[in-house]
Parts: sequence; C-alpha cells; structure tokens
Amino acid sequence: MNVRKTSVRSIPSRLRPVGVIRSTLRSRKNAPRQGSEGAPDAWLEVHPWAADGLHRLVVGDEILVITWFHRARRDVLQVRPRSDPRNPITGVFATRSPDRPNPLGLHPVVVRAIEGTRLRIGPIEAIDGTPVIDIKPVLR
Amino acid sequence: MNVRKTSVRSIPSRLRPVGVIRSTLRSRKNAPRQGSEGAPDAWLEVHPWAADGLHRLVVGDEILVITWFHRARRDVLQVRPRSDPRNPITGVFATRSPDRPNPLGLHPVVVRAIEGTRLRIGPIEAIDGTPVIDIKPVLR
Repeated sequence: MNVRKTSVRSIPSRLRPVGVIRSTLRSRKNAPRQGSEGAPDAWLEVHPWAADGLHRLVVGDEILVITWFHRARRDVLQVRPRSDPRNPITGVFATRSPDRPNPLGLHPVVVRAIEGTRLRIGPIEAIDGTPVIDIKPVLR
Repeated sequence: MNVRKTSVRSIPSRLRPVGVIRSTLRSRKNAPRQGSEGAPDAWLEVHPWAADGLHRLVVGDEILVITWFHRARRDVLQVRPRSDPRNPITGVFATRSPDRPNPLGLHPVVVRAIEGTRLRIGPIEAIDGTPVIDIKPVLR
C-alpha cells in the first residue's frame, strides 16, 4: 500500500474563493513584501454565497486572511529571501516567498469597517484581484 | 464584466500536498481542538519531490504548518464554537472550526528534530493522514 499516494488523492476538490481583495496595489512588483512594511488598507469583498460565514465578526477584530497568490510560480522550491542576491539560497518552506508549491498568502490584519459583505482591512500587501480562500480569527 | 467570476476562475489548479502528518491521533473525535490543549508531537513527512523546500530549516525553528482537514465538511457556514450548545451561532470566519468552505488548518509548532525529509513537530492536533499544504516560518 502506498500511503503517500492515498494522501495525495485525498484532496477531492479545488479551492473555492470566498472573496476577493480590492486594493490600490495593482502589480506585484510595486507591492510591499509584508503588510507591516507600509502596505495600505484594502477591501475584502466576500462573495454572496459565503456571507453567512461573517456572522459575529466585528470592527476591531484581528483576523488572518488567507489568500491565493494567483500570480506566483508553483514550480519554485528554493529562493534568495526577499529577492536579495546577498541572501543565501533558502528552501521556500523557510521563507515567506509567494513562489511555492501551493502559493497561499497569510495576512494578519485588523477589521477597520464592515459594510454589508465588504470588510475594510489592513494593512495588507496583497494586490488587487487576489482571491481570498479563508478568514480566521487570531487566537490569544 | 463580472469581476467576481474572473477571480473565481483564476485559481487554475488543485492543491498539491507537500507532505503528510503521521500522528498517534487517529480520529477527529479524540483530537484536542488546539495544539496548545494537550496535543502530542507528530511527524511531518515531506514528499520527496518537495524536499528541496526544507533547505535551511533547523531544529528549534517556529513554523506554521498549513494542513487540509480532509475529514471536514465544506458546506458549513455557521457553527456553535467548540460544538458547545451554550455558545451562540457564529459564522465560521469568526471561528477556528475545521468545517468551512476551504478547510485549511493553521498550526503553529516548533521543529523538535529533523531526520532526512521528516520533521518532528509539535504540539499539533491534526490527525494521522492529514495532508500538509504549506510550511511557513513564523515572522517576528
């Protein structure tokens, strides 16, 4: 029995975006590398079918927004962190590079405002049009 | 132009597990709800094709392991947190429920040991056979 194959097969479905980022950041090249590095606030538009999942989220909550870096490369396993040639070659699992086998972004943000199914959040370095996969509360 | 549809379409591929959890926890029913609630250490077996991504990870590193809760329900948008009937109905995006549209688990753990492509990590509440989707360093 090949246990590894069983595990690979056990992901039955594609990711289904629950929302999308609407930001003034339009290109990956100009985006900060982390939210804490001068990134702007943005809108998280939750798709109507998923809006019931927002119940009891309130302004001021600290949340983790998980995105899919749709412009990333999935065939990269090693990088120089921050694309800086002075940094040593490093495995992507030891870096926050967006280029990685499953290009998930993890963004700790604060909920600034809620307007219907739109959340004003920030700071966040994700570019306009980035799909949102999940939203989780920060645990204390 | 329907921008939402464009975003949904922009996730081109399935998730590809980079590894699997090998744990003494065998069923979701018996698993702690968070790693900090008495969960054991476990092995993270990285699949051979992804092993280059581990370069420069070392014992003692604090990492975030992202899993796919393969036993979760994806059609649930509201729950009572911790399955406690005394808790109010809450949107899944305001909880850490494994039942959610994209059942990603987020596990902060410490690397206890490294043996080839296997990482000893913990504490972690994920059950045996849980696919691992990504590994990220904790940012300070």
